Amino acid sequence: MIDRLIEAVEKKKNPTVAGLNPRIEFIPGHLTDEAFGRYGRNLEGAAEALWQFNRRIIDSVYDVIPAVKLQSAYYEMYGWEGMRAFKRTAEYAKKMGLFVIADIKCGDRAGAAAAYADAYLGNTDIGMGIKVPAFNTDAVTVSPYFGEEGLKPFIDTKKTVFIAVKALNKEEDRVLEEKIAKLGETSRGTYGYSNIGALIEASTPEGLSNIRRKMPCAYFMITGYGVQGANAESVAGAFDRNGAGAVVSASRSIMYSYINNKTKPEGFDAAARAEVLNMRTEIRKALKL
Amino acid sequence: MIDRLIEAVEKKKNPTVAGLNPRIEFIPGHLTDEAFGRYGRNLEGAAEALWQFNRRIIDSVYDVIPAVKLQSAYYEMYGWEGMRAFKRTAEYAKKMGLFVIADIKCGDRAGAAAAYADAYLGNTDIGMGIKVPAFNTDAVTVSPYFGEEGLKPFIDTKKTVFIAVKALNKEEDRVLEEKIAKLGETSRGTYGYSNIGALIEASTPEGLSNIRRKMPCAYFMITGYGVQGANAESVAGAFDRNGAGAVVSASRSIMYSYINNKTKPEGFDAAARAEVLNMRTEIRKALKL
Repeated sequence: MIDRLIEAVEKKKNPTVAGLNPRIEFIPGHLTDEAFGRYGRNLEGAAEALWQFNRRIIDSVYDVIPAVKLQSAYYEMYGWEGMRAFKRTAEYAKKMGLFVIADIKCGDRAGAAAAYADAYLGNTDIGMGIKVPAFNTDAVTVSPYFGEEGLKPFIDTKKTVFIAVKALNKEEDRVLEEKIAKLGETSRGTYGYSNIGALIEASTPEGLSNIRRKMPCAYFMITGYGVQGANAESVAGAFDRNGAGAVVSASRSIMYSYINNKTKPEGFDAAARAEVLNMRTEIRKALKL
Repeated sequence: MIDRLIEAVEKKKNPTVAGLNPRIEFIPGHLTDEAFGRYGRNLEGAAEALWQFNRRIIDSVYDVIPAVKLQSAYYEMYGWEGMRAFKRTAEYAKKMGLFVIADIKCGDRAGAAAAYADAYLGNTDIGMGIKVPAFNTDAVTVSPYFGEEGLKPFIDTKKTVFIAVKALNKEEDRVLEEKIAKLGETSRGTYGYSNIGALIEASTPEGLSNIRRKMPCAYFMITGYGVQGANAESVAGAFDRNGAGAVVSASRSIMYSYINNKTKPEGFDAAARAEVLNMRTEIRKALKL
């Protein structure tokens, strides 16, 4: 439910989403040494290091951010062991009160889309009336490439879906934006926003404030902040007049803040917290909050 | 390499790809009982049943088909345990000489696309100069939603990429088809076909023979055969004048042949083999081979 994310943003006074997309080469040596020492230098060891890294980041920031976003590519590259780290991270983040977004950009035909919806937002039937959640996240990103049939299974879960919008101002993009706008109008939650949101790059050719006007009920997740070039000023247009309606996700600039700031690797989690608080200050200033 | 797939089709005289997308509710009871008995009625038990089911299907058909296709959705819905079954299946199929296609329909931005390309077609760097394959498949399906940046990391691996083509005859579809045609011309293998292929539904609004003419160097993977409605006659247009240039994937009609034919569950693997041989006969007849 988008209402839960909105309430968390309000409570933490921070629209910052920490993207947890760890890569082994950027994880501090004391964590990788321990993980590889225990499991061997293999995918299991690497995945253990990812999970320990994520856990410490979550411990350090959970009280000042509303949500985390896990990009599945950076877990699948470490095999099923990586996907186990994905699940552990998602579970732990949830336990710590965070809203968990699976960035899977799923775009498939109806049958497969339904299976992905079960995997990330629903439950898997394993017989004898037993249903278990496979990854148990609160929201997903989806690709609209296959149209209605690929989106419906996710929308039907009534959980939050961020549809990837390119906003290139081509005919196909306009059709999609209109569709999201329409879907939003008929499915507003308590705060006026719908579970059917949009995932948008900050560097989108059309200005974010244009896009904001086009889809007034769609909650936005904006990517590209920090290392990828966007800053508080450039994302401000994504928000509504009350400074609400959007979250801004950053990954490398938070996770690897200790590298960017040339501070001690042992303090990577404190550095991540400092960056998250910095983002809060910057964005709130740009939004005049 | 597409050449390997072409040679396998030629050798087996069969353009049939077995889609291994198992769902626990359709797996014979003697396999699920054993798996759940050993691991408990949980995702681990379910995933074990998927793997045992797949292994027996592969044992039964490996000498008469060139390739298998694993749709990742049907593994992810069983969690990381399901992805372990995916890897075991892919490894075993490879060992049995089959060409392994990961049906992931990946469509993401450059960074994530590169991570997926590493995961399925390449290697993952885990430090100290050690690189390990995460899923080690021979080909993937990709979505062109994010354009060039999302396709390039896969194409750069020089392995086989099937780009999902909707063939709706819209402007965006025509642009994509022209692009695939162009890419194919400059990257032909020994048999005139490129590593950059196309994934197409048999029920595509434009006829398959039209699409065939538009992308003469693109190897096709056609879906929708069997339970989904297409038959040998309706897929024949996807092939070139030599009866080559395409494979036809079927999943439920092969895997669950024992259900469709109301034969004993214990004979599910023999039923799958019979269906695969039936597809071979039907398609070769339609192609006048």
